Amino acid sequence: MFKLFVVLGSILACCYAVGPLVTASKGEVWPKPQQQETSENYFVLQPHTFSFKGPVDIGCPDFLDDAFTRYWTIIATSSSLEQRGQLSEVERQPQQKFWEADDNFVGYLDSLNVELIGECVNEAVLPELGDNENYTLTISSEESTLSAPTIWGVLRGLETFSQLVHVERESLVVNATIITDFPKFPHRGLLLDTSRHFQPVYIILQNLDAMAYNKLNVLHWHIVDDPSFPYVSHTYPELSEKGAYHPVSKVYEQSDVRKIIEYARVRGIRVIPEFDTPGHGGFTSSWGLSHPELLTPCYSNDQPNGQLGPMDPTKNSTYTFLTNFYKEVIDVFPDSYIHVGGDTIDFSCWKSNPDVNAFMSANDISSYEQLDAYFFENTVSILDSLSSKYLVQQEAFLYGATLPKSTVVQVMKLGLDVLAALTKADMFGIYSGCWLLDKLSGGGDWEKFYNCEPLDFDGTDEQKKRVLGGEALMWGEIVNEYIIMPRVWPRASAVAEKLWSAQDVNDIEAAKPRLEEHVCRMNRRGIAAQPPNGPGVCL
Amino acid sequence: MFKLFVVLGSILACCYAVGPLVTASKGEVWPKPQQQETSENYFVLQPHTFSFKGPVDIGCPDFLDDAFTRYWTIIATSSSLEQRGQLSEVERQPQQKFWEADDNFVGYLDSLNVELIGECVNEAVLPELGDNENYTLTISSEESTLSAPTIWGVLRGLETFSQLVHVERESLVVNATIITDFPKFPHRGLLLDTSRHFQPVYIILQNLDAMAYNKLNVLHWHIVDDPSFPYVSHTYPELSEKGAYHPVSKVYEQSDVRKIIEYARVRGIRVIPEFDTPGHGGFTSSWGLSHPELLTPCYSNDQPNGQLGPMDPTKNSTYTFLTNFYKEVIDVFPDSYIHVGGDTIDFSCWKSNPDVNAFMSANDISSYEQLDAYFFENTVSILDSLSSKYLVQQEAFLYGATLPKSTVVQVMKLGLDVLAALTKADMFGIYSGCWLLDKLSGGGDWEKFYNCEPLDFDGTDEQKKRVLGGEALMWGEIVNEYIIMPRVWPRASAVAEKLWSAQDVNDIEAAKPRLEEHVCRMNRRGIAAQPPNGPGVCL
Repeated sequence: MFKLFVVLGSILACCYAVGPLVTASKGEVWPKPQQQETSENYFVLQPHTFSFKGPVDIGCPDFLDDAFTRYWTIIATSSSLEQRGQLSEVERQPQQKFWEADDNFVGYLDSLNVELIGECVNEAVLPELGDNENYTLTISSEESTLSAPTIWGVLRGLETFSQLVHVERESLVVNATIITDFPKFPHRGLLLDTSRHFQPVYIILQNLDAMAYNKLNVLHWHIVDDPSFPYVSHTYPELSEKGAYHPVSKVYEQSDVRKIIEYARVRGIRVIPEFDTPGHGGFTSSWGLSHPELLTPCYSNDQPNGQLGPMDPTKNSTYTFLTNFYKEVIDVFPDSYIHVGGDTIDFSCWKSNPDVNAFMSANDISSYEQLDAYFFENTVSILDSLSSKYLVQQEAFLYGATLPKSTVVQVMKLGLDVLAALTKADMFGIYSGCWLLDKLSGGGDWEKFYNCEPLDFDGTDEQKKRVLGGEALMWGEIVNEYIIMPRVWPRASAVAEKLWSAQDVNDIEAAKPRLEEHVCRMNRRGIAAQPPNGPGVCL
Repeated sequence: MFKLFVVLGSILACCYAVGPLVTASKGEVWPKPQQQETSENYFVLQPHTFSFKGPVDIGCPDFLDDAFTRYWTIIATSSSLEQRGQLSEVERQPQQKFWEADDNFVGYLDSLNVELIGECVNEAVLPELGDNENYTLTISSEESTLSAPTIWGVLRGLETFSQLVHVERESLVVNATIITDFPKFPHRGLLLDTSRHFQPVYIILQNLDAMAYNKLNVLHWHIVDDPSFPYVSHTYPELSEKGAYHPVSKVYEQSDVRKIIEYARVRGIRVIPEFDTPGHGGFTSSWGLSHPELLTPCYSNDQPNGQLGPMDPTKNSTYTFLTNFYKEVIDVFPDSYIHVGGDTIDFSCWKSNPDVNAFMSANDISSYEQLDAYFFENTVSILDSLSSKYLVQQEAFLYGATLPKSTVVQVMKLGLDVLAALTKADMFGIYSGCWLLDKLSGGGDWEKFYNCEPLDFDGTDEQKKRVLGGEALMWGEIVNEYIIMPRVWPRASAVAEKLWSAQDVNDIEAAKPRLEEHVCRMNRRGIAAQPPNGPGVCL
């Protein structure tokens, strides 16, 4: 099967050191498809004669045309050694059509036929949880076809096709291949935190590109938290005027949000916003700079000490405010789901406040955990009244809030016991416990993310079906715009493969050459991914 | 002293969240000067009327003029909020001359007089180990003068002056200040490894800029090692033709090297090259791709197994080759010192080779450590014959090589016992054991570098004077061009302060606000430094 590579490798051996610790694969796909057969026969793809042939008289021509243009450009610029001035003397010699003397060359690939089995009735269609993303891709002498039941499947298949195409000398080749592919999980996400450090819009767009290159389909936008409030609300503009790091330069205007959502949509990526409540780690100061009445006054020695803690769960006015605010949010963010937060609440401020304690006595709330649950029950009934679905952090579940079975619970804890418990209680879960990108180790630092399997708990098949997927988490404490890309990529690629590929795709050594190639591919496409495996080079 | 800042802070309080975990200082210097007095009185600096007044009729006008232009530009572009579109509505209002109503405003700073006490006789002067880098800087109503005995001291003082200047609203201010400053150590270095990953020239130049901003004065260019040979030799061009990752795009041409050395020189930074021998970790393959005869054939079961190990220390031809090669190196790299390597040799290949063992028997060499020492004795006598000075890795010392007392030994081991031992043996040392930038921890990850003091060993004052300084080490396994800047900076800044500032500057909490400011300053100057302290923002 690898004869071609061996032959070409020996031709080029004069010019390359044995240096890279892991030799990159060629034309291998990340994340690994569910089923793939590859032949040593190959086609040559010449960008100036290649095109995608789209489905005729079926919906969404603009959507598909844009996707074709995007992927044609990606493929055509894969072979840019010459543009990068990277040709050696030998390589600059005319060496056209080296393949003509090669038995494995079986022809030119001039088109890929794209078949959409279902229909797309609406150009503005949104990706949804549970969309069919299956596709089949056949590259053979008989036919070259990408077929999928939905436009989302088409997008995934185009990504795969673009990865099969690889460079041999200065030419693009693609091996004869048959792929049948589908995701292991429907929810495959990346959390970006834009409150601890502001991330410019271009960084979010670059991450959406990279997510598409890794078949991730949910941007969990942790947009607001304790340190800053960068979202410009039209209902309450004072929130960012007073709560952002800077009211002009460190905010997301409505137009920025729309741009991000649309950029994600055409890549088959959902955008789920999270405005963290009632107070991450016990505080949510950024809301309080314009609306101190939302927050709980903390007490020391029976006197208010001037500090404001989590939202005050005892006041009706808190929920009135949140109702108005969420009305706007579900209007601005069209996804069916909103994430209502709830991560790592600290109870000290509530404990210190006599009014909070009086409310608890009067309402038979006997613990602060119950009080937190009470807050979330109120929050989700606001969203129910607005016909929005929601995700919550695990605390709401663990503290015994009464939540509809449709609630999706995000598990941040390393162990899988919470996931086992909540699926046993017929709830849906997504897992993130082992995928915290702010945790650093040595080396390329992706193996620990790869060595993690969310389904690895004792439970019935029914339970495991209630695990909808997972998310890599890029908390913002230690990432500004200069380091976020290489810190996320390719470490989130390891997570992406765990969320897309079959459960038996779990061999680190086998993954290394593919990830080495995938990093170079992302670099070539403008994603500043860091090296995964030690000494190496991207040519 | 901080009245000005409090007043301005309260004016601006409307617009800034309480978010950053550590509030950046304003106009504080990194690394911290040896002696500094600062007043609450301040001057306003207007770039269009400000200039440096250089010494008249003394040498090196071009050198100094270039430095003045560089620092004028840095200062003039410090206040670029407006250019960055970062003004709020309030800030955009005409608010000229807010200082006129402030008692602490003491005037406009229209010039800084620069005095060179010594002479500079040669425009092409090179920085050397032990150059005087002292300076005094006075900003007062009576005079504003930077005075230094050498142009190197002038450079350090200009850097300090540029850091004192800071932004209040849209204006540049500088507090009345008196500084007397000098470095703790003469050798303050950063090792960049361009063999494990190739780093483009622009990355090396950016690091030289950042080094100047941190008063580091030695670029230890670990240019060649086992994985690749990116240096284009004019004596042996085949070394990079066959040994580079790519013979055209992943190499340093002679013109690149000259450019890097000159860029460093005008910033008062020495460039010391290291072509690692005899074999880092047991291998130095990149030399062997064109010159296999230099390397030791490794044996398995009494037969050569095809692998090539470290350089063959038993052959005269090895030393003849190295003599010719080093002749070129000392010509291309004008610094008085060459680093001859020697890090972490592995003996397995030498052990396996019968010819090596026969040579050892014939020459009364009873251990492989002694054989390594023999290799280094030969290497340094080559450099002696070429009148070059040299640094060696600690192994040469530990294995008992007879080395001249002028040899500088680099200590890579964490503990300080080797440093104590070698200074006791009247040798010179530089320390790196606690400053490996490829080691990652959580958070901003600089405290461990800051909590390290090379002089913290039992020894006489004479011994401690033989510690010439230290180096932060950026081994290249896990850094490509996309992540190297934020991985080095500001973590190497922590090292820089340990190497420049007084020994009692060791309080992490006191350093945090200054480092927070310094990172924003580096970001503003184009250095992609990562956040040091958790949630924050640079405005």
